[in-house]
Amino acid sequence: MSQQNNFLTPEFLLTTSTSEALYEKFAAPCGIIDYHNHLSPKDIAENRQFSNLTEAWLAGDHYKWRAMRINGINEKYCTGDANPEEKFKAWAETVPYTVRNPLYHWTHLELKNYFGITEMLNKDSAARIYALCSEKLQQPNFRVQSLLNNMKVEVVGTTDDPTDSLSYHKQFAQQNAGFKMVPSYRPDKTYTTGDVVAYNQYVDRLEAASNRSISTFNDLLNVLQNRIDFFDTMGCRASDHGLEYLFYDEQAENKAPALFLKLRSGKAIDTLEQDLFRCAVMLTLSRAYHAKGWAQQFHIGAIRNNNSRMMRTIGADTGFDSIGDFPQAKHMSRYLNALDTTNQLAKTILYNLNPADNEVFATMLGNFSDGSIQGKIQWGSGWWFLDQKDGMEKQLNTLSNMGLLSRFVGMVTDSRSFLSFPRHEYFRRILCDLIGRDVAKGELPDDLNLLGGIVKDICHDNAERYFGFAR
Amino acid sequence: MSQQNNFLTPEFLLTTSTSEALYEKFAAPCGIIDYHNHLSPKDIAENRQFSNLTEAWLAGDHYKWRAMRINGINEKYCTGDANPEEKFKAWAETVPYTVRNPLYHWTHLELKNYFGITEMLNKDSAARIYALCSEKLQQPNFRVQSLLNNMKVEVVGTTDDPTDSLSYHKQFAQQNAGFKMVPSYRPDKTYTTGDVVAYNQYVDRLEAASNRSISTFNDLLNVLQNRIDFFDTMGCRASDHGLEYLFYDEQAENKAPALFLKLRSGKAIDTLEQDLFRCAVMLTLSRAYHAKGWAQQFHIGAIRNNNSRMMRTIGADTGFDSIGDFPQAKHMSRYLNALDTTNQLAKTILYNLNPADNEVFATMLGNFSDGSIQGKIQWGSGWWFLDQKDGMEKQLNTLSNMGLLSRFVGMVTDSRSFLSFPRHEYFRRILCDLIGRDVAKGELPDDLNLLGGIVKDICHDNAERYFGFAR
Amino acid sequence: MSQQNNFLTPEFLLTTSTSEALYEKFAAPCGIIDYHNHLSPKDIAENRQFSNLTEAWLAGDHYKWRAMRINGINEKYCTGDANPEEKFKAWAETVPYTVRNPLYHWTHLELKNYFGITEMLNKDSAARIYALCSEKLQQPNFRVQSLLNNMKVEVVGTTDDPTDSLSYHKQFAQQNAGFKMVPSYRPDKTYTTGDVVAYNQYVDRLEAASNRSISTFNDLLNVLQNRIDFFDTMGCRASDHGLEYLFYDEQAENKAPALFLKLRSGKAIDTLEQDLFRCAVMLTLSRAYHAKGWAQQFHIGAIRNNNSRMMRTIGADTGFDSIGDFPQAKHMSRYLNALDTTNQLAKTILYNLNPADNEVFATMLGNFSDGSIQGKIQWGSGWWFLDQKDGMEKQLNTLSNMGLLSRFVGMVTDSRSFLSFPRHEYFRRILCDLIGRDVAKGELPDDLNLLGGIVKDICHDNAERYFGFAR
Repeated sequence: MSQQNNFLTPEFLLTTSTSEALYEKFAAPCGIIDYHNHLSPKDIAENRQFSNLTEAWLAGDHYKWRAMRINGINEKYCTGDANPEEKFKAWAETVPYTVRNPLYHWTHLELKNYFGITEMLNKDSAARIYALCSEKLQQPNFRVQSLLNNMKVEVVGTTDDPTDSLSYHKQFAQQNAGFKMVPSYRPDKTYTTGDVVAYNQYVDRLEAASNRSISTFNDLLNVLQNRIDFFDTMGCRASDHGLEYLFYDEQAENKAPALFLKLRSGKAIDTLEQDLFRCAVMLTLSRAYHAKGWAQQFHIGAIRNNNSRMMRTIGADTGFDSIGDFPQAKHMSRYLNALDTTNQLAKTILYNLNPADNEVFATMLGNFSDGSIQGKIQWGSGWWFLDQKDGMEKQLNTLSNMGLLSRFVGMVTDSRSFLSFPRHEYFRRILCDLIGRDVAKGELPDDLNLLGGIVKDICHDNAERYFGFAR
Repeated sequence: MSQQNNFLTPEFLLTTSTSEALYEKFAAPCGIIDYHNHLSPKDIAENRQFSNLTEAWLAGDHYKWRAMRINGINEKYCTGDANPEEKFKAWAETVPYTVRNPLYHWTHLELKNYFGITEMLNKDSAARIYALCSEKLQQPNFRVQSLLNNMKVEVVGTTDDPTDSLSYHKQFAQQNAGFKMVPSYRPDKTYTTGDVVAYNQYVDRLEAASNRSISTFNDLLNVLQNRIDFFDTMGCRASDHGLEYLFYDEQAENKAPALFLKLRSGKAIDTLEQDLFRCAVMLTLSRAYHAKGWAQQFHIGAIRNNNSRMMRTIGADTGFDSIGDFPQAKHMSRYLNALDTTNQLAKTILYNLNPADNEVFATMLGNFSDGSIQGKIQWGSGWWFLDQKDGMEKQLNTLSNMGLLSRFVGMVTDSRSFLSFPRHEYFRRILCDLIGRDVAKGELPDDLNLLGGIVKDICHDNAERYFGFAR
Repeated sequence: MSQQNNFLTPEFLLTTSTSEALYEKFAAPCGIIDYHNHLSPKDIAENRQFSNLTEAWLAGDHYKWRAMRINGINEKYCTGDANPEEKFKAWAETVPYTVRNPLYHWTHLELKNYFGITEMLNKDSAARIYALCSEKLQQPNFRVQSLLNNMKVEVVGTTDDPTDSLSYHKQFAQQNAGFKMVPSYRPDKTYTTGDVVAYNQYVDRLEAASNRSISTFNDLLNVLQNRIDFFDTMGCRASDHGLEYLFYDEQAENKAPALFLKLRSGKAIDTLEQDLFRCAVMLTLSRAYHAKGWAQQFHIGAIRNNNSRMMRTIGADTGFDSIGDFPQAKHMSRYLNALDTTNQLAKTILYNLNPADNEVFATMLGNFSDGSIQGKIQWGSGWWFLDQKDGMEKQLNTLSNMGLLSRFVGMVTDSRSFLSFPRHEYFRRILCDLIGRDVAKGELPDDLNLLGGIVKDICHDNAERYFGFAR
């Protein structure tokens, strides 16, 4: 057995005594407010029990599939028809080759924190670990709600389409699970018009969900408002948008009604028209968020489904997305400014995928933070490919240099997996160590109360205040 | 009182014995050549006395306002009608929340170096520090010229519009203040034509300043040359330009005369025409700089006045600017090449605001350094949002890797504040520590004379030679 | 004599005991597979003897010329008519001013590893070092083949135009030199059409080389296939392309035949047409590479020959190139996807010149790694301006975070100089130290076999397998 005594110790990532003190006294005791993720409301409401480790850990995890493919593993063992234990062994065999990738840390942190396993996962340990974890997962205290409670999760912010009935959120609200589950409004499909057939099918679903007909652009906006009202009654405090780039044109709202009629008549619109239409819908949505006091989240800069062969075969969100390089600054500024001009700019969290845009995003927040609340415009935590030590450190350092780290609403998993919550621990250790090292170098005063207060705010209190979850 | 003994010690930022030796023996003794800033010539010539700390430290400081707004402080306490002490308290309350932002270091360095204060600024210490500093500022040896002399400033390079009479520079030249004040030629308004009314008003002011009529493009160029001649007699050694991007088109100079007539007739020109017009004016200016032996400075990549509500309310330069992401390489290359082709490329300093462009700028300098002088084309010091430890280190490291650090003309404050000169100390400590750490790691030979000579050059001698200030 | 005892010691760049162990036991023993460089096949086949150090070290080295020009050295001493010793002295005088530039490390590593010199090169040591090295270079064991054998070079991958007869490769194949020399197919001129006269002259040369007439686009493609077949018989395992950006348009192959006729009739085509034409030729080439099992290399993002005055005077590849900032992600994705759709995507190595694109390139590889082989799509080693410690570390760290470091095919010199092979040692030390430091910090398990195996793979075995050199 290759247990590694130096690896993943209690001092993991904490390199100074201040780092350790900050982590132990201020960060570790905080509950987790995971205000944005892709967990299944159904699984949570029904308190799902997994039958084995592959089901809980590998199914749906495109990070792992991607690493396996790069490692030369056949698709059969990723998304194909291999059996669960075969798939697990293919993953286990890949793990040692993920050295220095966040998967290597996440994997062993997750095995340790959920299952108490300190052995390294590889070809030799695969069968042993698979059996042990699969056996545990069949115990009552390894159901989904327990997995979350064991990690001290206080709030789970799911991601939900406007057509969603939120029935699982209703069902869950009747339970006494020990944490909150709140929906987020994710209306990407309401303005994504590249495929006119798919768009019309979606509008039909919106009609069904709202029980209203949608013949005009105004009808569409009314239905979207109607769904926002509904989401709000269900505890929703945030929206979320996934975009290659924000787009703004002052004529967008004049042009959108005609574009909508064209779309509803089954005719395609060109790329610029798609941008204009999206802008028009989003402006209305953004104003509605402001009226509700919600926060709007923009996840910006991915290029998705690059591999059309795999898109046809196994669909979206399967590990064929990557980082784009679109110009971002001018249109983002103009979009936010258009809302600010009428004082209808909601709290906003901007997430970038390309770290070359870090400084653009970090400085954008200062243009529209107007003194109305602390940290009104946020630059979101390292997202997706940036959700690792290097990405987090760069985000924290650039935010420190160009904004106020102290007002940061902190980490989210943005995850599809119930076993991914140690990423909060990972983030917290990294945060505490950055600050601790500054103290050790004499770049910050050795004032544990000052610095610990900031750590606690970032790990928990800022997000609670920002979204109003304490109400 | 929360005095922090580990913080801002004499060894601040110096982590090796070589770093300390380099700083103490070579960097610290150097006077300061601040060849580019935005200090008020009037204040310098009249040797202004400030009545309180808010007036000297907060008025006009958009860095602080921006942090306060992010911290949820109402505009009243930034640029509004709160009284000086209220404003100071609002700032003091924000300071602890600027932990890890350069403001935290600058603030305490400035309190220490100018006023001898080693206490941390916060809500509790605010009244005490305000009273103490305001009292000192009313003493004769805290007038503007003393503030500069106490920091060993040798040269102040102000930023002046071509319409400026430079009367304060004349007045100052009669005094024996212990340092030089030289103007820089900043002609942005001569080619900024997005607002045709404002542009014509500006051309009218140019007519008045030069006492010549400007009917044709050629008239304009003649007046600009005339002002350059005048600035040169006043000791000007550099120009400065603020641009989103450099633009070059070989037809620009053919098209500019007609565009100028159109503008003078009150008609707007489109974005491409604005670019062409700017290019044409700038080419003529650049050739004139070369003829005078001036250095031309290009500050590239800001997007300004993003918040139109605040622009209307409180105007430009109030903290609503941020980092843009324009393509830079091709046009910059073509602009510089057009001048080089006729051997009319002046000494040039390129400053970027987006650090994603660092390597583009760092390698551009090598295309046009032609062996005529040392470091002919310079990549300027970390500017604005990059004027902090991380930004400086990246600039110094990338310049080291892709150019010659040893020929760098070094730091400028680019500041509007008489209390910002400790930033030179900050830069020098960072520079010495980078080199000292390389020695400690065995990546540089332990040769104090070699390395100390380079440090002294960067801190002082290179700039003196480059601009010809010693003459 | 300024020998520096702390500098370039056996532990150079190795800061932990694990770093040292990894380097000594796993990295240092590996032979060198330099799968891409610009060494002269003639010099290798004829086992050239250099007459002096200037000829071996300075001639053709645009890195050194560029540094000298920035240092204010007249062109006479770079590419001009100064005599060899004068040129060497001008370089030696510049060396101390290259402190922190990779040239400073490379220079002293090369003097040490090839000539046993541990003295620092500068004005004082110049004559002594010139005499000593020039004398050694005239000895039989300092001929070109010995220089390579002494560095344990196993494979040299040259860069060859499709018109090349590969006669030196044939001649070399008859010898028993102790290493392989394989050609690479570099067809840039076959689709570079900005200068229609030069393009037609090139097509004429292609006709001559292949002894076939080229009247139609199809003729061109047939000749290119013919040359690929020939290169393949000569042991070629890779192609190489130098591009500002990859371009893809689905109509490119329909439009190319007419564009070719237009070009052959002597008419210029516009920029978009040049892009379309290049795309069409490249798609055919890429499919041919796939059929042969070659790897295709794309070197992307330089802007070349920025200085037209020097281009006219001394030509290309003389130190007037720099880093561009083109959008890369979307077209690269579409180009690779077009080939993947028909399962004709060859093994591919993507090299970027602008480090702002690091993450775009690092994540692109995951879109098309399909589990068929380990590391099918590679993100290439730090290239040109990035071929230094900082650039290598960033490439290794980003590759680690976003891909699988363990499957990386590692370092290439991409060099024109027989004295540049210590860059492999440089890379290996940096690689071992990154991993060793992770172990020291508890971020990796202290498992020397696991980590040493990965080091050995990256330094040697991965490239050998990837290109099939062991066959």
